[in-house]
Amino acid sequence: MNLTPTDWPVTKMANEKSPIGVFDSGLGGISVLKVLAENFPNESFVYLGDTARLPYGSKSGETIQQYTEQNLRWLAERESKVLIIACNTASSHFQGDNYQGIPVYNMIAPGSEAALQVSKTKVIGVLGTRATIQSQSYVKKLKELEPEVTVLSQACPMFVPLVEEGWNDDPITNLIVFRYIQSLFNKNSDEQLDTLILGCTHYPFLKNAIQKAVGSAVQLIESGDALSLSLKKDLELGRWQANPETLTEPSTQIHFASTDRSDFFENLARQLLAPLVPHQFSLAHL
Amino acid sequence: MNLTPTDWPVTKMANEKSPIGVFDSGLGGISVLKVLAENFPNESFVYLGDTARLPYGSKSGETIQQYTEQNLRWLAERESKVLIIACNTASSHFQGDNYQGIPVYNMIAPGSEAALQVSKTKVIGVLGTRATIQSQSYVKKLKELEPEVTVLSQACPMFVPLVEEGWNDDPITNLIVFRYIQSLFNKNSDEQLDTLILGCTHYPFLKNAIQKAVGSAVQLIESGDALSLSLKKDLELGRWQANPETLTEPSTQIHFASTDRSDFFENLARQLLAPLVPHQFSLAHL
Repeated sequence: MNLTPTDWPVTKMANEKSPIGVFDSGLGGISVLKVLAENFPNESFVYLGDTARLPYGSKSGETIQQYTEQNLRWLAERESKVLIIACNTASSHFQGDNYQGIPVYNMIAPGSEAALQVSKTKVIGVLGTRATIQSQSYVKKLKELEPEVTVLSQACPMFVPLVEEGWNDDPITNLIVFRYIQSLFNKNSDEQLDTLILGCTHYPFLKNAIQKAVGSAVQLIESGDALSLSLKKDLELGRWQANPETLTEPSTQIHFASTDRSDFFENLARQLLAPLVPHQFSLAHL
Repeated sequence: MNLTPTDWPVTKMANEKSPIGVFDSGLGGISVLKVLAENFPNESFVYLGDTARLPYGSKSGETIQQYTEQNLRWLAERESKVLIIACNTASSHFQGDNYQGIPVYNMIAPGSEAALQVSKTKVIGVLGTRATIQSQSYVKKLKELEPEVTVLSQACPMFVPLVEEGWNDDPITNLIVFRYIQSLFNKNSDEQLDTLILGCTHYPFLKNAIQKAVGSAVQLIESGDALSLSLKKDLELGRWQANPETLTEPSTQIHFASTDRSDFFENLARQLLAPLVPHQFSLAHL
């Protein structure tokens, strides 16, 4: 990975040809970026991973809010026409639907809507980091959309380290997934849980292990797919403008920036991004 | 935990009655603090946990150096007479034996000396974070002290999350410990490993699981014990001055500060500190 030593120039003049800005506390948001890049092949993207300060999942709400603002500002200053908080923890701590007039999308609303659409029993599970679960952001959003819903939540702090260790398909991962999942099914409820929101952008990388643990009757909701549908709907409604030109060089689609350099994260980013290859890697100074 | 909203006043005038300053990226350094508080019952301590930016273990050397300097400065400004880097990752990235003239102790040298003292086969294992292992700090120090030593290293990135999850005594923890330990014994070597350095201040909390995995013939080296011996030796040599007075109120022995507030870390700090109870909790602005 060839990180340029200096930060990007500030431009601030977004237009329809401008990129979609995506940030995460680290690399989990790459799962969202990949879905968006596939579904919007003519859009370019700027991805910012706050690797110098990750993880957000165990930090205080005040600190997460401050970091989220700094990330949004950095992306806004680099002419993003749409801002995506591809981190459930940060999403849980940002109020509002725009930043300096630029539309902001978070992970909570699209995931909640998608879950309610597929759930028949209206018993929905949510897996997330400590901070996401503690913020009750999914519970609040689901209840707002459907007051009769039952929500069962479980914090899974070991999942991100498992993905970072590359143990996505591993007996130890299966055991840990079972341990966390168990609590969702031990709870008394008239109806059985039939839908499970993967409320952290790292979790799609553990999808197979989670599906094995919950059984094939439970529908998993991945944030990236849900967000992509929401963006498509809003494009039709005119909330944001598509790039009128065709990207002739697909290799220029993704610019990648991070707040820290380390061989470990650089290699992990490459692995998670594959088969996508970013056009440029930068070091971001927030 | 009653964190005061404002930072501590800057004093900068250390004398023999001043506290010993201890920092870690988070709460692992509490394992060191507890050993020191027990061995130096008349000394008072300031503990700084950089919980807003932890963990350091996967970050770049440049970023770790910068954070380490900021933590040392904060402790120096709060009149610490001795500075202790109770974090192996940070220890691996700080050169020198003093900061602004105040003696600095890191975890690498005492742990290495203690391991060489007890090892008969001179085959020594080191467990640590990715950054500590990658920095080769233990390998360099051990080889400097004993050129004939064989060092087998293993990064264990799942250990810190396990301690934070409170799974210190758990079948899943045993499996993960076995997985990491295995590689130390698979390596070809004429002599068998007989000493294992727990090269991260979180790891003593997993001591039982690690001892089970390696067997009782392998001696575990805990950084806190080793550091404590080194401090005792240097006190006799006059490198630092003991408090001439007796602490009449043991409850005033420990002041605790962290860079972030969160219920999770506050509860974990209480658990790890027990039976010690800190006199004061502060929020530190670096």
